[in-house]
Amino acid sequence: MLYMIGLGLGDEKDITVRGLEAVQKSQKVFIEAYTSLLSFGLSSNGLSTLEKLYGKSITVADREMVEEKADDILLEATSSDVAFLVVGDPFGATTHTDLVVRAKKLGVDVKVVHNASVMNAIGVCGLQLYRYGETVSLPFFTDTWRPDSFYEKIQRNRKLGLHTLCLLDIRVKEPSLESLCRGKKQYEPPRFMAINVAIEQLLEVEQMRGENAYNEDTTCVGFARLGSEDQLVVAGSMKQLLEVDFGPPLHCLVIVGDTHPVEEEMLDFYKLVKDRGQAS
Amino acid sequence: MLYMIGLGLGDEKDITVRGLEAVQKSQKVFIEAYTSLLSFGLSSNGLSTLEKLYGKSITVADREMVEEKADDILLEATSSDVAFLVVGDPFGATTHTDLVVRAKKLGVDVKVVHNASVMNAIGVCGLQLYRYGETVSLPFFTDTWRPDSFYEKIQRNRKLGLHTLCLLDIRVKEPSLESLCRGKKQYEPPRFMAINVAIEQLLEVEQMRGENAYNEDTTCVGFARLGSEDQLVVAGSMKQLLEVDFGPPLHCLVIVGDTHPVEEEMLDFYKLVKDRGQAS
Repeated sequence: MLYMIGLGLGDEKDITVRGLEAVQKSQKVFIEAYTSLLSFGLSSNGLSTLEKLYGKSITVADREMVEEKADDILLEATSSDVAFLVVGDPFGATTHTDLVVRAKKLGVDVKVVHNASVMNAIGVCGLQLYRYGETVSLPFFTDTWRPDSFYEKIQRNRKLGLHTLCLLDIRVKEPSLESLCRGKKQYEPPRFMAINVAIEQLLEVEQMRGENAYNEDTTCVGFARLGSEDQLVVAGSMKQLLEVDFGPPLHCLVIVGDTHPVEEEMLDFYKLVKDRGQAS
Repeated sequence: MLYMIGLGLGDEKDITVRGLEAVQKSQKVFIEAYTSLLSFGLSSNGLSTLEKLYGKSITVADREMVEEKADDILLEATSSDVAFLVVGDPFGATTHTDLVVRAKKLGVDVKVVHNASVMNAIGVCGLQLYRYGETVSLPFFTDTWRPDSFYEKIQRNRKLGLHTLCLLDIRVKEPSLESLCRGKKQYEPPRFMAINVAIEQLLEVEQMRGENAYNEDTTCVGFARLGSEDQLVVAGSMKQLLEVDFGPPLHCLVIVGDTHPVEEEMLDFYKLVKDRGQAS
């Protein structure tokens, strides 16, 4: 049996009781490193915190390992219980669909233990989840690569009065230019797009396109470390949010569409004019 | 402190470890009855199962109680810890934003414990969550009331190649016609829209409107008891799904847009031609 277990968003205690039981009875436990590296502070002592609560030793499986050794992982799952831990929900923004497809093809039973992900936890700001349009991803711009296909999507959502969730770029384990040249495996330090950078890029694209899909007065909600004890949620215009220091990653951004009165009332609690205090 | 705690979708074990700890240290524990009535089988012995795992007695708070006695609940939360349990995520399809707004206005601290909800757990079928358009709600048609504003939304999503989540009507604690006449409080038995009824209504509206937003050959995914041990996920055309007995509620339906190869591969596992077996 392969258990795909969502860990939720905050820390080791956001696993469900069902998920914890599955981990405890598994012979092997893997954790995807893509976002977990950060969210659960695996670079420092996060892994041992997880291992202590779960009572198991955990193998960190980065993308390379999952791609290269998927068959080994799945072979083990044919004869014993294997747990694969994923930050958020197993089918959230970071998808693990591919591993599940391979498992199913090999006839390995798969059980999914769901959990919160960014896609539903953004509900905390009061904007109704059913009033969101298509989600967009904002990639880091480089000197030569400034893709802006998100612009039409945001424009469309806003014309319909819908909110837009912007997922911000995460660069983990990118091979360094030097390593590409020398054929040695070396990686760039991880990079996570901050809300200010996202807004700068958004406004740059608006200036280029000039179709007024949004502007610096458009209301947005910035989320940092969503679901953690020290999460920060601030609502304000793009211009206002540009000046806010949201602190450590992960960040995401919502561009607000038309609002209903209850949405408005809830947003008010997060607005800068009142109190920048922590949401909970 | 008011803890708004998501219970997830399946049973009492889908609460998170963080949520469980918050329940255990709370002086008073309420559970919203709106959908929980069903999902956790509160009509029979579900409540005692919850109470046993959580080690607390739980008060069922239906909508009436929450509306009429919100101030009492919140008053308690000013001086002690109160847990308010919600099926799914506290800000999922069924919203509790209003209670949170009232709490914040009274200066009561609110902590949210997130969990999986329908909005993200539908990811299990392999369709990527960021490729969904606006969510629609399908209400029960009556002889005189057949609202079809969902039609334009589905049409729009499909033109853009996006998937559409259809939330199906739930009628709980509707006052009976007799009770309205006599001024006594009596309620209709709860009703939950089944996938077949939803598809019948969808096709009826398509026939009326005739703009071919979708038709009986359009691929859909039906979900019953999503997140439970006995969940059933079946992909197929509307015509095919009309014939499937999805069993007890809750049901929801996804109308599939354009698909990527990985989405397609995953959907194949749920298609009728292969095996109607349970998803997990």
